[in-house]
Amino acid sequence: MHSHFQPVDLTKAYRLLNHGPTVLVSASHAGVDNVMAAAWACALDFDPPKVTVVLDKSARTRQLVEGSGWFVLQVPNAAQARLTHQVGNQSLFDQPDKLARIGVELARVAGFEAPLVNGCSAWLMCRVIDEPHNQQTYDLFIGEVVAAWADDRVFRDGHWAYEHADPDWRSLHYVAGGHFYAIGEPLVIDQGE
Amino acid sequence: MHSHFQPVDLTKAYRLLNHGPTVLVSASHAGVDNVMAAAWACALDFDPPKVTVVLDKSARTRQLVEGSGWFVLQVPNAAQARLTHQVGNQSLFDQPDKLARIGVELARVAGFEAPLVNGCSAWLMCRVIDEPHNQQTYDLFIGEVVAAWADDRVFRDGHWAYEHADPDWRSLHYVAGGHFYAIGEPLVIDQGE
Repeated sequence: MHSHFQPVDLTKAYRLLNHGPTVLVSASHAGVDNVMAAAWACALDFDPPKVTVVLDKSARTRQLVEGSGWFVLQVPNAAQARLTHQVGNQSLFDQPDKLARIGVELARVAGFEAPLVNGCSAWLMCRVIDEPHNQQTYDLFIGEVVAAWADDRVFRDGHWAYEHADPDWRSLHYVAGGHFYAIGEPLVIDQGE
Repeated sequence: MHSHFQPVDLTKAYRLLNHGPTVLVSASHAGVDNVMAAAWACALDFDPPKVTVVLDKSARTRQLVEGSGWFVLQVPNAAQARLTHQVGNQSLFDQPDKLARIGVELARVAGFEAPLVNGCSAWLMCRVIDEPHNQQTYDLFIGEVVAAWADDRVFRDGHWAYEHADPDWRSLHYVAGGHFYAIGEPLVIDQGE
């Protein structure tokens, strides 16, 4: 990855998801890579950081997560709104060249098999904490975040800097039917109050 | 509640949380009401709609949820940023008059014990699906949404209308240390693409 790809302290990793962005979920198993979109991802714990994500049984990416025991949650941005919608609406089952058609570029970090999607704002490398009842009953997966990175043009010193970055870096917040909202203005409450 | 308080079809209830807002969690048990803030709440299923929310063992509200088996997730707005921060940073354990001090006004809907916070944009009435392992190990609670309502000045016909409403209605997306972002502009992807 490029020079703006910087590690995030694990104790601050929850902040990458705390504002509720829609994420991309990527995984790899037995030589197959895939990426899907998920609005239902959430922080679960601070230290060690954990996350939840809902992965439907119809999703090819879910099989890769189950097969490998790993996934990456990454925070896409306004420049990737079309890509985010497309990876969420096309299945690798139907379109084996899905990623190439959409123009998804993957990268890897030494030591990890799961791929990262280029151009995102932040990435959380997660190891599945096996919870078969949650996975079968609720399609709910729990992961421990073992490494995290962010693009320092939009997240630095442990904080999102949306208000100082190009609007293309804004996070995406999916509603339904191709409609997203981008993240907006900061609102700061005086700590003494 | 007032004339703008309108029911939301349960099949659309997930849309109230899909964009990842910070929520208020309210509950009541044995004559005690409380309200807390939670950034870690998420949709879990469409139909019947389910949600997850993380409730720390130190939270008085958690005891009320465990005691009653019910909670309400509600979506606060920019006009309530200070209230949201304050209910998240004061404990009923320390301040028995917490809600009055902060100015939280509660309302009730016939047939339900759990209270709703006045002035929010949307409300989801949730019955706890008992999952002791998740609750003890991860502080993770699962609820089935049995009723939902929204203020039709900001959510109507199954859709958020932030772009047509006063900025005071924007949802809050908490980061850390009193810093929120408000939801921003709509981004719409052509469905044919």
